[in-house]
Amino acid sequence: MTGSMHARLLAAPSHGSASAAASSSSLPFAAGRPCRSSWRPRHHRGHTSPPPPPLSLRASASMQPAAPEGHTDRTVHGVTSTVVGVLGGGQLGKMLCQAASQMGVKMVILDPLENCPASSVCHDHVIGSFNDGDTVSEFAKRCGVLTVEIEHVDAVTLEKLEKQGIDCEPKASTIMIIQDKYRQKTHFSKFGIPLPDFVEVDTLSSIEKAGEMFGYPLMVKSKRLAYDGRGNAIAHNEKELSSVVASLGGFEHGLYVERWTPFVKELSVIVARSRDGSTVCYPVVETIHKDNICHVVEAPAEVPDKIKKLATSVAEKAIKSLEGAGVFAVELFLTHDDQVLLNEVAPRPHNSGHHTIESCYTSQYEQHLRAILGLPLGHPSMKAPAAIMYNILGEDEGKAGFTLAHQLIERALDIPGASVHWYAKPEIRKQRKMGHITIVGPSKFSVKARLDKLLQRDAYDPKKVKPRASIIMGSDSDLPVMKDAAVILKKFNIPFELTIVSAHRTPERMYHYSLSAKERGLEVIIAGAGGAAHLPGMVASLTSVPVIGVPIMTSSLHGTDSLLSIVQMPKGIPVATVAIGNAENAGLLAVRMLASRDAELWDKSTEYQQDLRDMVLEKAKRLEELGWEEYSKLYLKH
Amino acid sequence: MTGSMHARLLAAPSHGSASAAASSSSLPFAAGRPCRSSWRPRHHRGHTSPPPPPLSLRASASMQPAAPEGHTDRTVHGVTSTVVGVLGGGQLGKMLCQAASQMGVKMVILDPLENCPASSVCHDHVIGSFNDGDTVSEFAKRCGVLTVEIEHVDAVTLEKLEKQGIDCEPKASTIMIIQDKYRQKTHFSKFGIPLPDFVEVDTLSSIEKAGEMFGYPLMVKSKRLAYDGRGNAIAHNEKELSSVVASLGGFEHGLYVERWTPFVKELSVIVARSRDGSTVCYPVVETIHKDNICHVVEAPAEVPDKIKKLATSVAEKAIKSLEGAGVFAVELFLTHDDQVLLNEVAPRPHNSGHHTIESCYTSQYEQHLRAILGLPLGHPSMKAPAAIMYNILGEDEGKAGFTLAHQLIERALDIPGASVHWYAKPEIRKQRKMGHITIVGPSKFSVKARLDKLLQRDAYDPKKVKPRASIIMGSDSDLPVMKDAAVILKKFNIPFELTIVSAHRTPERMYHYSLSAKERGLEVIIAGAGGAAHLPGMVASLTSVPVIGVPIMTSSLHGTDSLLSIVQMPKGIPVATVAIGNAENAGLLAVRMLASRDAELWDKSTEYQQDLRDMVLEKAKRLEELGWEEYSKLYLKH
Repeated sequence: MTGSMHARLLAAPSHGSASAAASSSSLPFAAGRPCRSSWRPRHHRGHTSPPPPPLSLRASASMQPAAPEGHTDRTVHGVTSTVVGVLGGGQLGKMLCQAASQMGVKMVILDPLENCPASSVCHDHVIGSFNDGDTVSEFAKRCGVLTVEIEHVDAVTLEKLEKQGIDCEPKASTIMIIQDKYRQKTHFSKFGIPLPDFVEVDTLSSIEKAGEMFGYPLMVKSKRLAYDGRGNAIAHNEKELSSVVASLGGFEHGLYVERWTPFVKELSVIVARSRDGSTVCYPVVETIHKDNICHVVEAPAEVPDKIKKLATSVAEKAIKSLEGAGVFAVELFLTHDDQVLLNEVAPRPHNSGHHTIESCYTSQYEQHLRAILGLPLGHPSMKAPAAIMYNILGEDEGKAGFTLAHQLIERALDIPGASVHWYAKPEIRKQRKMGHITIVGPSKFSVKARLDKLLQRDAYDPKKVKPRASIIMGSDSDLPVMKDAAVILKKFNIPFELTIVSAHRTPERMYHYSLSAKERGLEVIIAGAGGAAHLPGMVASLTSVPVIGVPIMTSSLHGTDSLLSIVQMPKGIPVATVAIGNAENAGLLAVRMLASRDAELWDKSTEYQQDLRDMVLEKAKRLEELGWEEYSKLYLKH
Repeated sequence: MTGSMHARLLAAPSHGSASAAASSSSLPFAAGRPCRSSWRPRHHRGHTSPPPPPLSLRASASMQPAAPEGHTDRTVHGVTSTVVGVLGGGQLGKMLCQAASQMGVKMVILDPLENCPASSVCHDHVIGSFNDGDTVSEFAKRCGVLTVEIEHVDAVTLEKLEKQGIDCEPKASTIMIIQDKYRQKTHFSKFGIPLPDFVEVDTLSSIEKAGEMFGYPLMVKSKRLAYDGRGNAIAHNEKELSSVVASLGGFEHGLYVERWTPFVKELSVIVARSRDGSTVCYPVVETIHKDNICHVVEAPAEVPDKIKKLATSVAEKAIKSLEGAGVFAVELFLTHDDQVLLNEVAPRPHNSGHHTIESCYTSQYEQHLRAILGLPLGHPSMKAPAAIMYNILGEDEGKAGFTLAHQLIERALDIPGASVHWYAKPEIRKQRKMGHITIVGPSKFSVKARLDKLLQRDAYDPKKVKPRASIIMGSDSDLPVMKDAAVILKKFNIPFELTIVSAHRTPERMYHYSLSAKERGLEVIIAGAGGAAHLPGMVASLTSVPVIGVPIMTSSLHGTDSLLSIVQMPKGIPVATVAIGNAENAGLLAVRMLASRDAELWDKSTEYQQDLRDMVLEKAKRLEELGWEEYSKLYLKH
């Protein structure tokens, strides 16, 4: 097929018919948006002139900011005058266009589908195949910078275009490495990136040999055009090998095998790389797949800080080995022995970064535009504490599928902090990504609970909830005192854990408990201890999470020994000490600490204080009304 | 002028020329986006058929979801199938379209300007005047619901359309009330909304009488078509009256006067009203005007909670008096005596709500769509602690203006948490709103400092910064101890205030200080006291902001009296007590409390703890190397 067969004009302005319509009394709709005057060669502007000749290449070159046709005004309007061309107009292209629209950046897309998601929000849409060399070449001439929203494009043409001076970001070399998964693995392996073991197979004997080497189950993969689990198959034993190979199209299709990697979690890191090669990394997220398709993304991932650091460094190192600017998604396996292995890389915005639209200072889409346009990279941190993303996948074909999706969306619209994205794909199919929902909230706990509500899951199990606070004590004999703190936290609906950690009898446990406190999401620790009460101080010396100490009453010294052990800490190790035996105040102090950034909790806490006040005022009123003698008789124990 | 003169077809698909172009080898661009197949009458789809006749009204009715032409499939695709029509395609229309695009909601706009901001992101754009009855009538037939992004539209036609069953949100009655500022004031006055005094004037003698009644300066205003300060003029004395009246077009233009209102701050509340009349309110913001045009918006406003509550209730009451769904902006004056007076209302998304795109769970634009479409209202709270919005106004005409705006944008792209919105208006004029920048961050302090950087303002004055922490003490004699807390806060770059508040000698001051602590932005209070140390406990009893108590050493009882006074608080009033005289630990505890939600501070705090550890390890190494005898000689004082 040639380019001209792939590409066709969608809705060229017919000036003759436009003026005819204008003289009628009806108000026909524009078939599309108007030509932007800064784009269209100036002599095409008149509305009574004859239909324009097909735009020449010269005319289309006017889209490049460096040489706008007909005049030499190089003033930049807004963020940039560079036109961004995107190969592909699916949901990723659509979200790129949305980010571009906000910044006033002009986007043109190349996609074969007339109603592709990006078509409704791009500046212009060329209908044509991003796999056809001629089409891509023609398209590229109209763009100041060319990028992709899908890696399965004609990379050979991109390479040719680069030699002609066209600015492709990321580079064709990168697309070529990524397109072929075997080549990708070989590349990253060369750069010392940790990967599951893999080997190319091209005959039955070679795959049998690989099976002996790696054991079973054995992962068999197509080198090319594999995504969302397509192109992958598992052989459970040697006997299955030939049928698995056949299911993937045979050896001539290009196959390799991978050692089976049992993983604890799948992680993903979005890395943005600027034109000068500098990088910034988004927070590590956990991706949860179902039938090989991304199902849920949790941000940030609930893994220890050292795993976050390791994942980020593996991801950054991998992306630094590639050429060109843009955002890249690095999918990773976290193994049982705390290894982080690279699974695969996408050279573009990614499903695991959808949440960034609502949850991060700069979304992955704006970041991609900033990167390829040579603008400063934006801040990748989260602006809200937690986010969770849920893919709306087609559950059925046609009407039934649309109805099910709509029901899900109706529930989502009722959930606080939920944003609904609908890609407006013209057709629905099973497992097709039709949209997504991102829930942002003040804590992991709240966004997970809201997702459960969205999915109408069983009532939420408090044991599963991530605690924000913890109550620890040296001995179970402290429980009668410490339970008062638990009562308060429960009253204020703060998820907490309560356990025994003894500084003297379980020093190792105390050590690990304290070191992991922040990573496990604890925001405050209440520690009760009696006698030579070392627990609160020791915990405070091991973590920066605020520690509240409760001195427990002792029989010998009435708790003054506990109090002084807890409160008289050396400089550098603060413990917030409350009165002897007053665990209730420890709970209230924890509430006040958490409430400073939590409006709902603040209101509850203020209300509680008001209630205490009212109680005293009520008593005062009663005392005044009854007189002290009557009051004493009625209300005070003698 | 008639509708047909206002409206003209923008870019109808010329199928003949399209197929001709397709057969050439070039790739002419679509003049606009493709017709969405669900919109276009089916017989217009073929690409070789003759040019279509002007779309008939019947055909255009296919855009209404209730009766899609040619088939009876009522399956809702995505959020809704209802087409939203907007009168006006400026920046507010553009941002509405952006919100709609995300949710997959179809938007059509009516605007006379071919290159209006919304044209690049709407589903379709009809070029025509929203002030012309016939044009609006024709346009309305194509929409499932009709709304406005500007109140200066043909409301009489809207009223007529409502009678014909067209769904206008908000209602024509509301637009009519808002359009005429005098009528607006009369309306709200009738509903008991607090307003500055006002009176209609139609002769020189009546305005002179008003001047006597209200005094000077006197605010003279046009009833209609007034915005951004246009239509307002000030008479400083009686002599100026006739020239001021002339400058506003004379009495025949419709004038009224208002009592001059000296205000402390201008506030704004965005209220969303659903179709069933229920409302939700966004956080109160402060709007800062310059030359009568919105310049900066700070969210949330820095005013006491009681003012926030008052402002919200005035705003909500005002909006409840109007008819129809949508978001409304209520602009308010805060006076010196803590009154909140309504200034004016906009029946649409508003400049003071731009920040909600980045800072709130549901933006005002999505909220407007939810409201008019009868979907559940979204959560209006802020998802990040603070935001500040800065309008990019034209500073000059033409090239020079674009260059200045671009320079500002370049700086903004370098500022963490800053999002740039560029409306892509084809021309720039002085004071014209060309775009805006929203900065979101972890505190008011940080977003203000970033705005200062953006505007290249003088180095930031620490005295002007809003403190996050406070250090208070009963007497200046406590300073030698308490300064250690100040040293820590300064080291961690936490803005704080330090002052003397005595529980016993300035009880009133202590009372007001404590009650206003939260409102003034304090997140933690460090209170030092000696002897019968009542200050920390008293403060803790008056505010829910966490209080850290520092017992000061006393000569008689070595500070044990202070310690026990502070730590032995009754149930309900927690004080985080540290060791006697250990203000350094109080500072560190404050840091830990603030760090739990502030990633940057957390890292610093952890680093500090690591440094302490390293210091001890260094000493241990030295002790081991030197031996205890040598070490004692060298490093210990004898």
